[in-house]
Amino acid sequence: MLTPLVRAIAVAAPLPSLGDNTGDLDRLKKALAPQLSWGMPVVPYQRLGKVAERFRAAGFTGAAIVNDMLGTPVLVDFLPQLPPVLAGMALDLGTTHLEATLVDLTTGAVLARADLENGQIRYGADILTRIHHAAKDEGLAELHRAIIGSVNDLALELSRVSGLARAEIRALSVSGNTSMVHFFLNINPHHLCREPYIPMVNAPDPCLAGELKLAIHPAAPVWLLPSVGSYFGGDLISGVLASGLDQQAETCMLIDVGTNAEVIVGNREWLIACAGAAGPALEGGVARMGMRAGPGAIEHVQIDPDSGEISYQTIGKGKPKGLCGSGLIDLVAELYLTRQIDIRGKFRPQAAGDRLIQGSEGYQFVVVEGKNSADGQPVVLDQVDLDALMRSKAAMYAILTTLTNQVGVAFADLHRIYVAGAFGRHISPRQAIVLGMLPDLDLAVYEPVGNSSLVGAQRILIERAARERSLELVRKITYLELNVNQEFMLRFSGSRFIPHTDHTLFPSVPFFDGD
Amino acid sequence: MLTPLVRAIAVAAPLPSLGDNTGDLDRLKKALAPQLSWGMPVVPYQRLGKVAERFRAAGFTGAAIVNDMLGTPVLVDFLPQLPPVLAGMALDLGTTHLEATLVDLTTGAVLARADLENGQIRYGADILTRIHHAAKDEGLAELHRAIIGSVNDLALELSRVSGLARAEIRALSVSGNTSMVHFFLNINPHHLCREPYIPMVNAPDPCLAGELKLAIHPAAPVWLLPSVGSYFGGDLISGVLASGLDQQAETCMLIDVGTNAEVIVGNREWLIACAGAAGPALEGGVARMGMRAGPGAIEHVQIDPDSGEISYQTIGKGKPKGLCGSGLIDLVAELYLTRQIDIRGKFRPQAAGDRLIQGSEGYQFVVVEGKNSADGQPVVLDQVDLDALMRSKAAMYAILTTLTNQVGVAFADLHRIYVAGAFGRHISPRQAIVLGMLPDLDLAVYEPVGNSSLVGAQRILIERAARERSLELVRKITYLELNVNQEFMLRFSGSRFIPHTDHTLFPSVPFFDGD
Repeated sequence: MLTPLVRAIAVAAPLPSLGDNTGDLDRLKKALAPQLSWGMPVVPYQRLGKVAERFRAAGFTGAAIVNDMLGTPVLVDFLPQLPPVLAGMALDLGTTHLEATLVDLTTGAVLARADLENGQIRYGADILTRIHHAAKDEGLAELHRAIIGSVNDLALELSRVSGLARAEIRALSVSGNTSMVHFFLNINPHHLCREPYIPMVNAPDPCLAGELKLAIHPAAPVWLLPSVGSYFGGDLISGVLASGLDQQAETCMLIDVGTNAEVIVGNREWLIACAGAAGPALEGGVARMGMRAGPGAIEHVQIDPDSGEISYQTIGKGKPKGLCGSGLIDLVAELYLTRQIDIRGKFRPQAAGDRLIQGSEGYQFVVVEGKNSADGQPVVLDQVDLDALMRSKAAMYAILTTLTNQVGVAFADLHRIYVAGAFGRHISPRQAIVLGMLPDLDLAVYEPVGNSSLVGAQRILIERAARERSLELVRKITYLELNVNQEFMLRFSGSRFIPHTDHTLFPSVPFFDGD
Repeated sequence: MLTPLVRAIAVAAPLPSLGDNTGDLDRLKKALAPQLSWGMPVVPYQRLGKVAERFRAAGFTGAAIVNDMLGTPVLVDFLPQLPPVLAGMALDLGTTHLEATLVDLTTGAVLARADLENGQIRYGADILTRIHHAAKDEGLAELHRAIIGSVNDLALELSRVSGLARAEIRALSVSGNTSMVHFFLNINPHHLCREPYIPMVNAPDPCLAGELKLAIHPAAPVWLLPSVGSYFGGDLISGVLASGLDQQAETCMLIDVGTNAEVIVGNREWLIACAGAAGPALEGGVARMGMRAGPGAIEHVQIDPDSGEISYQTIGKGKPKGLCGSGLIDLVAELYLTRQIDIRGKFRPQAAGDRLIQGSEGYQFVVVEGKNSADGQPVVLDQVDLDALMRSKAAMYAILTTLTNQVGVAFADLHRIYVAGAFGRHISPRQAIVLGMLPDLDLAVYEPVGNSSLVGAQRILIERAARERSLELVRKITYLELNVNQEFMLRFSGSRFIPHTDHTLFPSVPFFDGD
């Protein structure tokens, strides 16, 4: 039995008469109350007239639409009969990309999927630029309108795919990082990027879609996954919900790499989390030849150690356009294993074949020649991109070691490591281990969980327990601030080699001593 | 200890730090929670940014403004320090007149009083005309704007008198009849005057002033006294609160005469109520020379039985302008006692002196000659006004007998009769008894309670128990519909004599048999 964020409840009220002069709305509430174990419904002022009029127009019989707002039933609409489908939208509100599903709230079935670039990108590719833009006159308002516009476009696409009208979307759950949630709510993000990095709000109370000018049903409840801090957002809470990290006896870890890398470790007793800038090189649009994991992205690369021949797979099987995060990791790991780069991540011209060419800004490794690519341009990896990846992988490992060290848990104690996001969906953990990005554990420990931010948002739509859990998680998670952590800085330096300064930490990875 | 509708609560939250990355709003809620025995506060979306910004700007220390909405604390504002005065407006939303007080919510003291004509009068003097007007295009919107405009004007006047800004009015309680509440909320009153007379809503949930475009503080809670039915509004519930009718062991009665006469009888065990059109002749502006009980209104009249000389008192002691309800009752009772009208309420020219003149539409009794009046026009009572008063007094007595008969209570069983409204404030119960309008009981039984609608609204502002009681009253009161009551029609006919067809019911009143 699902406990969705909004329900349609059949009601047949007694007809008004001289002997029963109960007001229309009071009559509806009275008829509804026995079916609501969770309290007497309230009607917000902006829905008052509509609900009462529609109840009367329907002859006092039909279906009440009731939002489950933090346990209080909020009566927002009345239909002549139970709707064939009651739909909700689950939204992963990413910095670069939005992904959403339309969910049948009665069955939990996914009715449609869609994704879209974040319309805020025109004001800045990264969050910091946008936070600075928000400080300008009208800046915050522009960013807010842009994100609301994107969400509305996405709703339109879900509507097109599903055949339901946008106004039939009667609930929205939103899972995003803390900055995106601030922009979405039109509240000042100024302090998010300034020490001590305090959000305006971590756990906003739910509101109605109409208050945000969303083009779905105006009375749809908008339920935002709460955040733990500026750098640990609702998207991660969503990931915890999706993975079940907070309900397991064994200690597990969740890694989500997006714009930042966010990591949480714990079990049903305790949870500790941190976040750091380990993501950029792996995110589409940051590395020069990097792209989002989508059609045409090279997701896997192999280099034959004997012939040096390169083979690759693209998402969608078409001609390659660029490298997504997993392709980049594969490529660099293979370049290391074939000794075409050294342990510092620098090209070794003496070992490289004719694919290494001298570009205007230094060496470039040609992954795909122009004649074989989608747009006639070669797909290359240059030293700048390589350096960025080295920083990312060092940051990632430093984050993981700092965090586990904080709670005295060894990597070997981890029962499972969930890898979330586009990163987790395509990455080969083996190659990430080769680079020294992920700890050298049995591959069975690693479990990709896909877009757990979206999966968690879906659960918020249909399970009251998930909604309650999300709020408990905010209280339960201890957040470790890395921005000022000395241990992290030290560990970061130690991680800037392949696989690591201390190569004994990675027994399974060949170590090429000296050069 | 008062439990007002809005409170200012001193808060000193720990400062944010790297070790404590709680969001601003979450920090405020956490600091506030121990001081709120009645639950965790929620922040409505429209106040989110403002509360968070002001809390931070105040250095995380100051005063939280918390609305007590049906037991849920709603956090709506933050001030750098406790305000010197936290003020709320209590409003009697009358059909012809609005009256309001500004109340200090910490002490309960009344800071200012004001009253104003209802701006809706331009669309119709009576409710029925306005309900018909509401059916026109834009009609309801016009009526809504008119009443909101009047309330805003009244708030301005309270602000002028008290020296507080309108935006410092942080709560509003509204006590009005059911139609006025519909206009105030901008909801369709169509069915209020059509059988079976069903309101759109009897007990609306509270909202915020900004949602109604009220010019007081936008986050002020607006608490509307619930109604029992179309003809038994929140103003009466307010009267019950003010009189304590629902808390007494002895059976008492409350009579409120405004546009309608509304009567409720009962005790702490049971309550029964009804309403009827007994008011019009007693309301200012309806009788030709009638006026509201205000400066220049003749409130009391005596006729010397020997000399036939008339003496009178005006409100404010100035020159007379017209007759208010109590003056009208006094005058007609004296005319009866001096036999200048007969038991059917008709002028007796054979007994009248030179004050009875023949006007264009029949006899007129000159109460005040033009030379002695405020505007040079004589104050007169004509047969038309007299007939209207006879109908009103008959309706009133019929209502009282029908209602008490319904529950098997004799008038003599009534411990006390509270008389509310402008009617109750100035009326002489003795003269009303002479007319046969009120039962012939010991005068000590009658207790004027003034504008109990306003007094009840004041209690709503400062006592949570009164707010809870008001909602219980809606469930507790049985409403007797008179519009289709045969017994009432019969009793009405029997009451159209002075004092009554059955004069033995009024042993204290001289009966002038035959003519």
